[in-house]
Amino acid sequence: MARYDFASDNTAPATPEAMDAIVAANTGFTSGYGGDAVSARAADLVRALLDADAEVRFVASGTAANAIALAALCRPFESVLAHRHAHVCTDETGAPGFFGHGLGLAALPGASGKIDPQSLEAPLAAPDVSYRQPAAALSLTNATEYGTVYTAAELAALTGPVKARGYGVHLDGARLANAAAAGFDLKAIQGLGVDILVVGGTKAGMPPTEAVVIFDRGLARRFDARLKQAGQLPSKGRFYAAPFIGMLEDGALVRHARRANAMAQRLAARMPFKVLHPVEANGVFVEMDDARLAALHAKGWFVYRFLDGSVRFMCSWATTEAAVDEIAEALAAVV
Amino acid sequence: MARYDFASDNTAPATPEAMDAIVAANTGFTSGYGGDAVSARAADLVRALLDADAEVRFVASGTAANAIALAALCRPFESVLAHRHAHVCTDETGAPGFFGHGLGLAALPGASGKIDPQSLEAPLAAPDVSYRQPAAALSLTNATEYGTVYTAAELAALTGPVKARGYGVHLDGARLANAAAAGFDLKAIQGLGVDILVVGGTKAGMPPTEAVVIFDRGLARRFDARLKQAGQLPSKGRFYAAPFIGMLEDGALVRHARRANAMAQRLAARMPFKVLHPVEANGVFVEMDDARLAALHAKGWFVYRFLDGSVRFMCSWATTEAAVDEIAEALAAVV
Amino acid sequence: MARYDFASDNTAPATPEAMDAIVAANTGFTSGYGGDAVSARAADLVRALLDADAEVRFVASGTAANAIALAALCRPFESVLAHRHAHVCTDETGAPGFFGHGLGLAALPGASGKIDPQSLEAPLAAPDVSYRQPAAALSLTNATEYGTVYTAAELAALTGPVKARGYGVHLDGARLANAAAAGFDLKAIQGLGVDILVVGGTKAGMPPTEAVVIFDRGLARRFDARLKQAGQLPSKGRFYAAPFIGMLEDGALVRHARRANAMAQRLAARMPFKVLHPVEANGVFVEMDDARLAALHAKGWFVYRFLDGSVRFMCSWATTEAAVDEIAEALAAVV
Amino acid sequence: MARYDFASDNTAPATPEAMDAIVAANTGFTSGYGGDAVSARAADLVRALLDADAEVRFVASGTAANAIALAALCRPFESVLAHRHAHVCTDETGAPGFFGHGLGLAALPGASGKIDPQSLEAPLAAPDVSYRQPAAALSLTNATEYGTVYTAAELAALTGPVKARGYGVHLDGARLANAAAAGFDLKAIQGLGVDILVVGGTKAGMPPTEAVVIFDRGLARRFDARLKQAGQLPSKGRFYAAPFIGMLEDGALVRHARRANAMAQRLAARMPFKVLHPVEANGVFVEMDDARLAALHAKGWFVYRFLDGSVRFMCSWATTEAAVDEIAEALAAVV
Repeated sequence: MARYDFASDNTAPATPEAMDAIVAANTGFTSGYGGDAVSARAADLVRALLDADAEVRFVASGTAANAIALAALCRPFESVLAHRHAHVCTDETGAPGFFGHGLGLAALPGASGKIDPQSLEAPLAAPDVSYRQPAAALSLTNATEYGTVYTAAELAALTGPVKARGYGVHLDGARLANAAAAGFDLKAIQGLGVDILVVGGTKAGMPPTEAVVIFDRGLARRFDARLKQAGQLPSKGRFYAAPFIGMLEDGALVRHARRANAMAQRLAARMPFKVLHPVEANGVFVEMDDARLAALHAKGWFVYRFLDGSVRFMCSWATTEAAVDEIAEALAAVV
Repeated sequence: MARYDFASDNTAPATPEAMDAIVAANTGFTSGYGGDAVSARAADLVRALLDADAEVRFVASGTAANAIALAALCRPFESVLAHRHAHVCTDETGAPGFFGHGLGLAALPGASGKIDPQSLEAPLAAPDVSYRQPAAALSLTNATEYGTVYTAAELAALTGPVKARGYGVHLDGARLANAAAAGFDLKAIQGLGVDILVVGGTKAGMPPTEAVVIFDRGLARRFDARLKQAGQLPSKGRFYAAPFIGMLEDGALVRHARRANAMAQRLAARMPFKVLHPVEANGVFVEMDDARLAALHAKGWFVYRFLDGSVRFMCSWATTEAAVDEIAEALAAVV
Repeated sequence: MARYDFASDNTAPATPEAMDAIVAANTGFTSGYGGDAVSARAADLVRALLDADAEVRFVASGTAANAIALAALCRPFESVLAHRHAHVCTDETGAPGFFGHGLGLAALPGASGKIDPQSLEAPLAAPDVSYRQPAAALSLTNATEYGTVYTAAELAALTGPVKARGYGVHLDGARLANAAAAGFDLKAIQGLGVDILVVGGTKAGMPPTEAVVIFDRGLARRFDARLKQAGQLPSKGRFYAAPFIGMLEDGALVRHARRANAMAQRLAARMPFKVLHPVEANGVFVEMDDARLAALHAKGWFVYRFLDGSVRFMCSWATTEAAVDEIAEALAAVV
Repeated sequence: MARYDFASDNTAPATPEAMDAIVAANTGFTSGYGGDAVSARAADLVRALLDADAEVRFVASGTAANAIALAALCRPFESVLAHRHAHVCTDETGAPGFFGHGLGLAALPGASGKIDPQSLEAPLAAPDVSYRQPAAALSLTNATEYGTVYTAAELAALTGPVKARGYGVHLDGARLANAAAAGFDLKAIQGLGVDILVVGGTKAGMPPTEAVVIFDRGLARRFDARLKQAGQLPSKGRFYAAPFIGMLEDGALVRHARRANAMAQRLAARMPFKVLHPVEANGVFVEMDDARLAALHAKGWFVYRFLDGSVRFMCSWATTEAAVDEIAEALAAVV
């Protein structure tokens, strides 16, 4: 029997809190397209989580949410600055260019998934020339693709010069819960100049749902039409809003993320392979050759080789100590 | 308290069968992006429903599903023939043009939502000229936007000349369950030359989910990349597949649709306003002036004025006899 | 020998003034992409023509110029209001949707190619709903597709309510020279609230070239990148700018248009078929059945049946009295 | 007085042969949109040049021609393999993504502008995964951006494995004349499996015009509508076709390119800076620091730092021995 426990954080089932909220919301007739009481309540909870008076929408897909955000911030003949291994650059099949009608992605370097602040200097200083797509926005990810977590100060060092140029900022929070569990202050986001934030539900243990938070109210105008045209304005909106109620009302979102992060720590502590990035959120990235990876696969554990050549182990809310111990044993056997 | 019972068929909650299936599927770790056993089982059930060996994918949005289908059938400088009141033409914020990069929609006439076969003649006979978008596909809807149901023979009269030209055919089945409940043979679809079918889950009583059925295997190549780029390849695919298992395993899909259709008949029978279209599926469309519509709204019943000026009453799996009787009473009071 | 004299106003050769200016500009090395002295001089002349301090660019294609203008004024989930027979709606193969990523075109009625002001009321008053593309811009054409000419007052009646809503205005001036020759005051355009104007060169007797005039300087930011990405920033810009120098320096633009208009009057005066629209610019539209049109074709005269069913005769700067008399004779023979 | 002689090969005026042909074609009325005798004659000459029975269209923009070709070969969720410094990747403002609705560009390495054949292996062998844009086409450039020229055998080594996978091939021939002048056999192109070729007119000494050659007749279906929608179907087609007549009837195209190449040789021979790439066509790329480049600029000579950090000197048909000697003198003074 193949085991996907550590293959990704979207291989896990949904949390009881999220599922109970969906079941609870599944009663009676209600207006559609986000105009229902469940959606309103969930939006309030997201605003409270962020301590921000922002527009909130619930959508089905993180890929679409990110791409729609970038399309809102950047015209087709402009480009988005992002870490070269950001999900929008590497794992979304070019969705930003599809939703953004050819907008460019400028890949920036930086260790362990964090953009090197110096790498911003050249694109921000570059004069506009007709034959290149000039920068118009910055896309950030927290926690990063490599399981590291930006501090608010680190993010400010990136958003500051970008906002000073009048450009937009997008924050991909697919694993924002893990960042929060690692100590990142969610209430600092608005102050950092983020224009559009995507709060990940799916990887945080919900059924498919993502919250799009629009801090810049100017961008929010006709946003429902933007979402509808892009196939992301669900008629039965309560199904995407309810999980956030279940996960936010009593703090389950960060609580579950804390557990996922702790399981990553537990795995790192028992990891017989060299760990390549700081373990700050819910992933462990190690140096492992093909033969040993194949041997691990042969033992039934599915994990993947990642963008930088490391092998990635992801934990989730559902990861058990027992599973960590089992895979640690398998790892010990193949090292 | 506002009542949305008849406002649309997506104001209803999800059926117990669909919800139970989701809860049942929400267990253990599994591979993502549709590669799981739940998705495989649901696809088998859809194939059995249609008696067709087709590719099946489960997506979040009917709007996106339709638009992606049209983009697969039609290049940007070509156009899709569709009824002028088809959902793709009137209620999807131009999604076909967005997903299809400017593809055209040629609006065809026809009574009660059915395309007049004669209206196909001119566009199919038109010579290609550089300055117009020539037809490349036909988009059909069954049951129609006006609650009527095409017979297989009626559809064949439309698809025949289109397929003879080598063009594609899309069938929007947002209310295919209602068509089936009205006697339309789902196993006839493949034989009609349909290339891509969208089987509606949402309006049929499921949480948000739609099945995309690709009969033409050539079109299926790299379809997952197409879906992923368009934000419609869910990582936790089982949540979109499971409801179809619940609804198909014991025939709940058509059983619930039969009830919705029956409720529309019951409402039509007691309707004090002139019914404008044959009541064959789950909608009743009537002649009602603004004052009377306002009076009905004032009684708490939300229903909408539709594209042809009629007022639309939609029934769903969850519509009760009591609700029909209550709104019939309200209608009697405002007539 | 087939004769295309009256088939369109783009079947004519270029004027001596335009050609001489190209030949004169074809000397020495110069910087590219519009940064040359010829482009600067031509832009000055366009600004003088319009008495406006606007940004001016010279591009190859009127279709592209219009579509790029609309894309600059309207987001994909919004729509452009235009006469239902405007060139952008009927003769550009859906270019606005292609360059504008699915933006909508809302077709408005109106006699003889002029938008009926009352037809603006409903779309401007319509509340934003998520499932429709709300209006964001108005597209006008002067002279119209039917050879009529808006007065400044007539245009003000259309642009006024549009600008009051904060929406944009595009003016397709493919035949602006003919409008000017008919008395339309070009210096009134900026005051009407037009944001982007396309001054037609091609139909006015130039080799392929159109001037894009951007009155709203905010829209002009990064416009060269917009043009370059869209394939409309010519490296050898002088070839598109020079004809405007030749045609504007001594008034040839309007002088030639005056002749084209006069030839249309001459043709109308001798026309044995019923003239269907006021002859104010360079076109004559008549009622003619298929048999008579075929008979005219058989005599070697190519003219086309137009959008409203009329048969169209276009005059140009190159139309001779002799040609008018010859076709008048042919018409007399087939009437 | 600033001198642009070596800044690019599009800073030169048009050749007498091209201009004479335009003037000669500018007579009488003719049908539009490429249906005229001038366009037909020019297409015949292009076919003769290539010894190929292909479809030929004449368009205004090389950027658009390339982007339209790639859009014809590659769907939005697929990608094009190209040298990382190919014009389509670096100097067209993301036009392929705009015309191709988000299609990807996979940047390949290789010395002096030629794709390293080994770099094709990985993308061609990569399994299709939903989250990446799989390869669907190869884009080549001859002569390359670095003034080198592929042999037919070198191109065959690249196109062979690509065609074996069923993928498309595009050849950007902006400087195809220079390649031909360097000995590249134009009649070999079709045999290499090229599907769409763009024969550059502009950089070869014509007024703005490019010939799009469609070898794969299947791709040619409705190509005029494709061009029209993209703003590249000129109504006065003869102005884009005529220069090719002037340049092809007596061999001027290659003759002028031979001179441009010879001027590059002359400059290379007198170049006091290190030449970084083989001088096979009309460009010379040298190692020069900023201070020396500024000193050269101060002497009035505009040349640019190129993608690899070298400074580029381009020659054209209009480059004179005297100009080469003058800039050589200036270079000697700043070395």
